[in-house]
Amino acid sequence: MTPSAPAPARTAPTPPARGRIRAPVAFDHLGRREAAIRFEMHGTVSRSRHPAVVLGGISAGRHLAPAPFDPSPGWWPGVVGPGGALDPDRRPLVGLYYLGGAGRPGKTARTDPARTRVAARRCLRPVTTHDQARAVAAVLDHLGIAAASFVGASYGGMVALAFAELFPARVRRLVVLCAAHRTHPMATAVRSVQRAAVSLGADAGDPARGLALARALAMTTYRSAREFEERFSPFALRAGTADAAPGVTPGAARARFPVEEYLEARGTAFVRACGAERFLALSESIDLHGTRPGSLPAHALLVSFDSDVLAPPWLMEELAARQGRSRARHLTIATRYGHDAFLKETEAVSGCLRRELAGEEVAR
Amino acid sequence: MTPSAPAPARTAPTPPARGRIRAPVAFDHLGRREAAIRFEMHGTVSRSRHPAVVLGGISAGRHLAPAPFDPSPGWWPGVVGPGGALDPDRRPLVGLYYLGGAGRPGKTARTDPARTRVAARRCLRPVTTHDQARAVAAVLDHLGIAAASFVGASYGGMVALAFAELFPARVRRLVVLCAAHRTHPMATAVRSVQRAAVSLGADAGDPARGLALARALAMTTYRSAREFEERFSPFALRAGTADAAPGVTPGAARARFPVEEYLEARGTAFVRACGAERFLALSESIDLHGTRPGSLPAHALLVSFDSDVLAPPWLMEELAARQGRSRARHLTIATRYGHDAFLKETEAVSGCLRRELAGEEVAR
Repeated sequence: MTPSAPAPARTAPTPPARGRIRAPVAFDHLGRREAAIRFEMHGTVSRSRHPAVVLGGISAGRHLAPAPFDPSPGWWPGVVGPGGALDPDRRPLVGLYYLGGAGRPGKTARTDPARTRVAARRCLRPVTTHDQARAVAAVLDHLGIAAASFVGASYGGMVALAFAELFPARVRRLVVLCAAHRTHPMATAVRSVQRAAVSLGADAGDPARGLALARALAMTTYRSAREFEERFSPFALRAGTADAAPGVTPGAARARFPVEEYLEARGTAFVRACGAERFLALSESIDLHGTRPGSLPAHALLVSFDSDVLAPPWLMEELAARQGRSRARHLTIATRYGHDAFLKETEAVSGCLRRELAGEEVAR
Repeated sequence: MTPSAPAPARTAPTPPARGRIRAPVAFDHLGRREAAIRFEMHGTVSRSRHPAVVLGGISAGRHLAPAPFDPSPGWWPGVVGPGGALDPDRRPLVGLYYLGGAGRPGKTARTDPARTRVAARRCLRPVTTHDQARAVAAVLDHLGIAAASFVGASYGGMVALAFAELFPARVRRLVVLCAAHRTHPMATAVRSVQRAAVSLGADAGDPARGLALARALAMTTYRSAREFEERFSPFALRAGTADAAPGVTPGAARARFPVEEYLEARGTAFVRACGAERFLALSESIDLHGTRPGSLPAHALLVSFDSDVLAPPWLMEELAARQGRSRARHLTIATRYGHDAFLKETEAVSGCLRRELAGEEVAR
């Protein structure tokens, strides 16, 4: 426990706080061992202010909203923050770093070539979404929170589903975006190529280059063909001509394409934000994810996006259709932004969250 | 000219023949230079037997059907061959190797690390689909064929469109499958990652590993999510459970997934069939492709497949809609096989070809 951890169940306003706990976690593949878990909390828990755990994708951190210790916006601007659908002034919010990978996660990612080679050769035990859920439970224990609502998107949606399976009594409301009870083979296929790219880079002594390539590939699955067409096609609004073929200058050396430069830039930026070993661990964790569809809580909302190829509507509908006794609902939002729509369609997402959580929200 | 090249315009049956010519080609980016072009011909050209040029994907060769010099089936079994929609006994057929990349293409691919590094660093001039069309014209000149029908699929469809643009008077009928007047940015994005994987492998001293990875990734774009779901998902027919999560054995080291093993096997097989430098050249050639939609000939049929993400129906419809004075038609076939449907949906494809080419086919 660190001095910065907020005291539980206070009613007076508490400033946002960050903390780091060491807690025993019963890992699926590692056995029981102590794990360091880093969290962030905004707002004050009281009898009338029910907390929400907010969980994002594999590159999301614990930082949810501007705070004295970090004035930058959190990973979900437009949805989380004062006045937003998840407003720390109206509802206490908890975020955390996912377990997985060595090194302290943060703004300066650490990629150790030797460790990445070991990770890439599959010599490390996997971390599962259920392990992450156990880490969330340890943080809630520490904060004195018996039950919370969960809002999880992408990998965070999988973790929220795993939490609901392991600790059903601790879940009030559950909103899952862009995630289902399982992955599907085409998504696993592309992620396995991403991991192989990191592995190739590590063996070449340049894991960062492999990681950048993996992220570039991942970007193609986070967005949609339609959005790329609108952003990058010189032909989108007019007839194509041979003379205007992309990247061609007669007599020039090999071509570079605008979309290629975009992907390279995204890959390079990611290397600064995430270590290769951590990426490998969380990427694999996605492909190992599996929960029983029947384990959904009574109040659950599933939100899919029509152009999302990673958690497509048909897969989330499979979860909704097999929900057992839950009254889970599934709605699909039309968007050009694919899997990233949970970050881009902030208005539609906020509407869903406000409606779903309204029942337990308390006015200021 | 080689002794094995058939004499033009004979009426007596001619056995299948292979040949290699050296002909001047006015390359778009290389200037005019002599190129070696390797072709194969089946059947006999006569006044009533109109030839067809048959062009496949980047890994298709010139071999079209069993012949004394090569009893193996060609690259398009079920469509090309005795009794098939493209029957060498009823219609003379011409195939060829595409230009691009060093080394003699064939069963034993050659990948030279140093040359691949040069190619990967974009120091070589690109080869375009129009260059390939000029090579086709040189072969037709050599064979004494003034005009032919064209059946092109995937990259071969792009080459056929480029031929129709450059040599409109030499095209009788044109059938284009899985190809359009241009590519789209999402397809270019995934191909640029494939080329970067080859480049990374080359810099690591192992271009074959990079090439295998590139092919593994390419496979994800040749097939559909639905087909992968049916083939590889352990959950496709039943509810998922945490215990049955794919690849998980409690206490095991990192997981391998069935779809991952499939992709690796396809990648390894491809390395034996295609050199890395050739792959880079043809992959880039796809992304440089561009023809004027208005250049379609009077008789043209465009065939798309609903699950094809590389040449999606909307892109082929764009070509059909901008055809100008042509009477080109566009039809879309429903399939689970994505881009590879031109190879897998042989019955539907054969029906299209028979109907389209019937007007100029001559009974035995």
